[in-house]
Amino acid sequence: MSATDSIKDELARAVRNVPDFPKPGIQFKDITPVLADGRLFAACVDELIGNFKPGDVDTVVGIDARGFIFAGAVAIKLNCGFVPIRKKGKLPYTTVEEGYDLEYGSNVIALHVDAVKPGSRVLLIDDLLATGGTAAAAAALLKKIGANILEATFFVELGFLNGREKLKGLPIRSLVVY
Amino acid sequence: MSATDSIKDELARAVRNVPDFPKPGIQFKDITPVLADGRLFAACVDELIGNFKPGDVDTVVGIDARGFIFAGAVAIKLNCGFVPIRKKGKLPYTTVEEGYDLEYGSNVIALHVDAVKPGSRVLLIDDLLATGGTAAAAAALLKKIGANILEATFFVELGFLNGREKLKGLPIRSLVVY
Repeated sequence: MSATDSIKDELARAVRNVPDFPKPGIQFKDITPVLADGRLFAACVDELIGNFKPGDVDTVVGIDARGFIFAGAVAIKLNCGFVPIRKKGKLPYTTVEEGYDLEYGSNVIALHVDAVKPGSRVLLIDDLLATGGTAAAAAALLKKIGANILEATFFVELGFLNGREKLKGLPIRSLVVY
Repeated sequence: MSATDSIKDELARAVRNVPDFPKPGIQFKDITPVLADGRLFAACVDELIGNFKPGDVDTVVGIDARGFIFAGAVAIKLNCGFVPIRKKGKLPYTTVEEGYDLEYGSNVIALHVDAVKPGSRVLLIDDLLATGGTAAAAAALLKKIGANILEATFFVELGFLNGREKLKGLPIRSLVVY
């Protein structure tokens, strides 16, 4: 087992399973025990960065809200800027918007039109890849403003939900797969 | 002018004023241009850290959602853990809760009961100190679980709203005051 496999294993064990949240039958993956442990949080941020080095990336984009925790830290370690993608109505300046379907109903996320320069090399980071709806909408927003998405990176992937299907054509990496 | 005054001045100039957001008459302080600039974002995180050194702090606590961007990065730079305070219903495990009044209506925020060990030395970080309602409720939550709050630190303070009045007894620091 490599060092990176060993730390991923430790990260996976530190994620807390909370049954029946937010509703009966769902096994919620609670990442807060990882975040609360300085050593594990740092290791998780380093694994999200992977082989990227300062100078490789212009902007790290985080998805509201847990994605912000990782993306801000990754941006600092890669000496680059941070850009938020947020639920519609939260960003104050002119935005592009993209909707996606949820199990019940739908959601709209937004990005400032001037968030990155066209051609910018962007990492897209979120805590969780589930059905892929949010990430696919986020990627669509970034393409609308001309970003060049190097990779979409996730801490946890719920493999049985086939989120990768919605993100075809995009390099994807996740640290822990259930 | 000292180096730290000079960078604070630069940060203040980079904040974008968006009139009439989220409603007519409000001048919204848009921090996204600071975040998007790698140099300014890094300077802002360093100024939030101030004189704290690795070893001084056990946990950095961020308030949902923009507080997460800074608090995660500060935790990584101080080699310590990160803990989120979120709107009620977002955290999956057992929580303590605290309500506070808004201009119209009220809000409830929550913190996992096991988020920090009693006596832990905590930094509380948010992007904005406005009326102080959220920060006061956050401080109350942290006290409920026995945290020792070293300081509440904010990027932007709207001085004319007198938020510090609600946070008496707590060391407070902000980088940019309007």
